[in-house]
Amino acid sequence: VENSQHAAVTEIIAFAAELADEARKHSSAYFRNVMEFERKADESPVTIADKAIEGAMRALIEERYPDHGIFGEETGFTAGDGGLWVLDPIDGTKSFLTGMPLYGTLIAYLESSAPLVGVIEMPALAERWIGSPSGTTFNGRVSRTSTCRSVAEARVYTSSPDFFPSPDDWQRFDRLSRMAALRRFGGDCYQYALLASGYCDLVIEASLLPYDFLALVPVVENAGGVITDWGGSPLTVNSGEHVIAAATPWLHEQALRLLG
Amino acid sequence: VENSQHAAVTEIIAFAAELADEARKHSSAYFRNVMEFERKADESPVTIADKAIEGAMRALIEERYPDHGIFGEETGFTAGDGGLWVLDPIDGTKSFLTGMPLYGTLIAYLESSAPLVGVIEMPALAERWIGSPSGTTFNGRVSRTSTCRSVAEARVYTSSPDFFPSPDDWQRFDRLSRMAALRRFGGDCYQYALLASGYCDLVIEASLLPYDFLALVPVVENAGGVITDWGGSPLTVNSGEHVIAAATPWLHEQALRLLG
Repeated sequence: VENSQHAAVTEIIAFAAELADEARKHSSAYFRNVMEFERKADESPVTIADKAIEGAMRALIEERYPDHGIFGEETGFTAGDGGLWVLDPIDGTKSFLTGMPLYGTLIAYLESSAPLVGVIEMPALAERWIGSPSGTTFNGRVSRTSTCRSVAEARVYTSSPDFFPSPDDWQRFDRLSRMAALRRFGGDCYQYALLASGYCDLVIEASLLPYDFLALVPVVENAGGVITDWGGSPLTVNSGEHVIAAATPWLHEQALRLLG
Repeated sequence: VENSQHAAVTEIIAFAAELADEARKHSSAYFRNVMEFERKADESPVTIADKAIEGAMRALIEERYPDHGIFGEETGFTAGDGGLWVLDPIDGTKSFLTGMPLYGTLIAYLESSAPLVGVIEMPALAERWIGSPSGTTFNGRVSRTSTCRSVAEARVYTSSPDFFPSPDDWQRFDRLSRMAALRRFGGDCYQYALLASGYCDLVIEASLLPYDFLALVPVVENAGGVITDWGGSPLTVNSGEHVIAAATPWLHEQALRLLG
């Protein structure tokens, strides 16, 4: 059973990489060619590219795994009997809309509601992180978090002060991050990829949705890191919008304490 | 006289590109290999790479133009009789120290205290903007700002709320940028490169030093944009730390009014 399970995961990883190839192809055709944009009700700008990329990935999944479920940012939820694919075609739409190469495509594969395989695909940078029970890779090479154990030594990231809708949440983040070795703003999903490769140590955000964070879980955890909500609970499809990722369990524990 | 002046500028542009090649070579050797960092008194992290890159550029200038002056972030000012080279080996040190490919090298060439040629070199992205009286290029192709005329339609960038030491300055920026189509944090010199290529429309910062902003002037102005201090005055070696760059004169004027 273990061997067949392992074989299945290998197959899923290879297919997730095919999905990322497809996303890279489509988004590269739009990036820096889209000068117009509209606003969604939630103020996040969205482009034609978003829909094209998700549609292309969805078509590949439906062909290959017709019994699987799909949950996409643009096209919503389609129930299935097998695994569940969670897709965010363009994470970092503000980057995408300003020619900034930090947008990514997020692909998560869940079994029994737990994220098993995750992909952070960075089309404009030609960089890809894949996390699975076999480990985390960055462009095919083993990727590990740093050994940072304390906030005082940590390099901290968050996307934007604008993504802390609650002033109290902002104050908690602000206080903690001012104790750190450095803090930098701007990065969306790429921050977690940097963490999985040991380039930063702590990422804290307060307004992520399931399609934003589920793919991050296998990438961070299988690189040696810890990623949970602000209460320390595992991230699931039902988690709230608060995410904290740390390079080590010690750093995670200290950061949770300082946040709370 | 006009022809000989033009020939001289062409020579300066070619030499500035050589300096950028040198910077790219050195910084690529350090990027993502530097895991340790120290803090300077001003809290900006600095690396061995900073000094290596500036030293290499300085050596090339001293060999080629022994009568020129040099002002570098790391090694300070060396007086000369001819033109003046202003160098920032690594702009965006927080990016550099966190594996984020948004750090750049800035090279400005001034005659009679006016910035004539500017280079924004992005080593990890293999992207380079060169601005001169001949125009602005992005990897060798003509680069132009957008046609955006109003703040309401503008895509606004700034590096970080942490780079507004005065609460009043932050409030002025905050108020203005909330009227814009979108605002995004994080980018340092790259923001001005994006503006010069029409990908964003307005960049506003409050803590830049001459080696941070002098190279930006020829890049932005020769792409069709306007770059000044917050009072609308041209940027010189004696300017203060407030910089505003806009895609068009109309946008610049409106933004100055809203800031003030």
